[in-house]
Amino acid sequence: MNERYTTEGRRHAVLTEGFLTDVHGKTAHGVIRYRPEQVAVVIDSQHAGKRVRDVVPSLESDAPIVASVREALRYAPRSLLVGCATDGGAIPPKLRLPILESIDAGLDIISGLHEVLADDSEIASRAASKGVALVDVRIPPAKIPLFSGAAYGERRPIVLSVGSDCAVGKMTATLEIERAGRAAGGKPEFIATGQTGILITGKGIAVDRVICDFVTGAAEQLVLSADADSDVLLVEGQGSIFHPAYAPVTFGLLYGSAPDALLLCHRPGLKHVIGFEQRIPDLRTLVDMHERLLHFVKPARTIAVVLDTSELTQDAAHDAIEQAERETGLPADDPVRNTGAKLWRCVEGLLSHR
Amino acid sequence: MNERYTTEGRRHAVLTEGFLTDVHGKTAHGVIRYRPEQVAVVIDSQHAGKRVRDVVPSLESDAPIVASVREALRYAPRSLLVGCATDGGAIPPKLRLPILESIDAGLDIISGLHEVLADDSEIASRAASKGVALVDVRIPPAKIPLFSGAAYGERRPIVLSVGSDCAVGKMTATLEIERAGRAAGGKPEFIATGQTGILITGKGIAVDRVICDFVTGAAEQLVLSADADSDVLLVEGQGSIFHPAYAPVTFGLLYGSAPDALLLCHRPGLKHVIGFEQRIPDLRTLVDMHERLLHFVKPARTIAVVLDTSELTQDAAHDAIEQAERETGLPADDPVRNTGAKLWRCVEGLLSHR
Repeated sequence: MNERYTTEGRRHAVLTEGFLTDVHGKTAHGVIRYRPEQVAVVIDSQHAGKRVRDVVPSLESDAPIVASVREALRYAPRSLLVGCATDGGAIPPKLRLPILESIDAGLDIISGLHEVLADDSEIASRAASKGVALVDVRIPPAKIPLFSGAAYGERRPIVLSVGSDCAVGKMTATLEIERAGRAAGGKPEFIATGQTGILITGKGIAVDRVICDFVTGAAEQLVLSADADSDVLLVEGQGSIFHPAYAPVTFGLLYGSAPDALLLCHRPGLKHVIGFEQRIPDLRTLVDMHERLLHFVKPARTIAVVLDTSELTQDAAHDAIEQAERETGLPADDPVRNTGAKLWRCVEGLLSHR
Repeated sequence: MNERYTTEGRRHAVLTEGFLTDVHGKTAHGVIRYRPEQVAVVIDSQHAGKRVRDVVPSLESDAPIVASVREALRYAPRSLLVGCATDGGAIPPKLRLPILESIDAGLDIISGLHEVLADDSEIASRAASKGVALVDVRIPPAKIPLFSGAAYGERRPIVLSVGSDCAVGKMTATLEIERAGRAAGGKPEFIATGQTGILITGKGIAVDRVICDFVTGAAEQLVLSADADSDVLLVEGQGSIFHPAYAPVTFGLLYGSAPDALLLCHRPGLKHVIGFEQRIPDLRTLVDMHERLLHFVKPARTIAVVLDTSELTQDAAHDAIEQAERETGLPADDPVRNTGAKLWRCVEGLLSHR
């Protein structure tokens, strides 16, 4: 139980059941977008009979959608991936039955929720009797050291994605910039800090699940364990420094990953923290506050603004990018719409200064 | 195991063993200072034969110090209190033997360390065979909800202690102000957020031990569960917003406890974060950054500066207090040296504005 996740040989039935078009379906979205070869089928009775691209065109996936575990078995999955991230991380009641049916069908169960599959007595005993694995990618390693400052000795540039809120595209931006960097012959490494990133890369720690005293230590360990042949580390950010609920996680990464540079992610038009009444500061204030805080810890500067313009027309997206550049004096782009090439060049600039 | 701690009927042998004069002995210091009636004896072979006040005069305690558990038993303790807080929270190897001897003597074991007593197979099996309780006050309750914003509805003033570093007297300041407030006929309530505060009050959550996603929720629950007849809530702070390792815990309280007012704690002369190379910003910058951050979450203002002048002469302490007042334009005082009366008046001022 709780074995470490590897991406090798995976073939998932992705269970979204009502979350496919929802922000809580972002775990499913990430795996479908970045590991399409691992997605055999999606289970979501609301959209059964369609293909994923009919429901969420931006995912560009032809994976079939079916209504039940029984139908999904025709596509020969080897695992059921619980493809949603609920607030608080409990197993949603409507997913219990498909999880139990999947166990009965011999599928391993892979989850990124806070709630541990093996702590659920019904799921655990059923899995044990069927001999299937329960893999909780959210659960961190048992022994995480305290932050020591060893990350300050890392000589490769460390770039952290920060943002104006949760769910403004920090993970996607970071993955797209990594992709553009590799396409340009660079050796960037995406460092996963959340469950979806772990499912995509087979590495990382879901830092929001770490005991608070050790969250900076977890971020530091991620930096220290980067591949030896990477030449720039792109750390996936979480939350926002002004988020009333999740800022502690954000600071775990902001201080613990010891960045040299920041990418500020935002969704144009977002005025309030999702689910709360707090207003989001303007981009200039966000840049300023990150840099002021880090000034006393390890100075870093913001090198670009990353926009999620998926809800805008082409013209409106173009205007939003120009406006962000005027507002901050920094390069801006949407790496999903326009590829990560322009933003990669900002990252690459850090290498030439070494 | 892991039963919730109550202060009722406690009579501790406090195990410090080398930590009595050390910053890591602060758990012992807190209990000796604020619950003297519960301290039967202190075990520390370095200082055996003396009384606590001979070694740490400021604690004003006549508790005897002995060299071993065997000698401590003459003072009829009912529990062994592990009186140190190590970095990382592991059980220090040199404390294992006295813990096991205490179990054999029938004492309950009370610990505020991260490492769970019951997870140590030797300690757990010995305790089970002797029928003694293992009480880990650091371990939070099993179900902590996410931060919801419900604390914003609290009508009583919420005052949070913040600081320039760990171990600059936040807990002590908050307890002294509570004491002064009660002496003045007020109804302030100290809200414990760390293991020592829990040992003193029998309530609270050690927020640094909470899973990072839930630390703001834990702080919010502490506010929501304050006594009905308190009229001002004094929340014990942790760490500092610039602490490279522990800032996530600080933000858990800064955002989660939803303060209306801050008390900025500092030790004059402290230039660098303890154990790290980072410089501590000046008091004006500390006030400014806390208020800027909270401006976007729930605005709060700093109402006073609290100084730990225990290492200064009377004259130097007086000068340091005056200098802090000039530097910040705020009232300042050392509530241990001068009682918490002046600082209580700052807190009381919040009540008259309601």
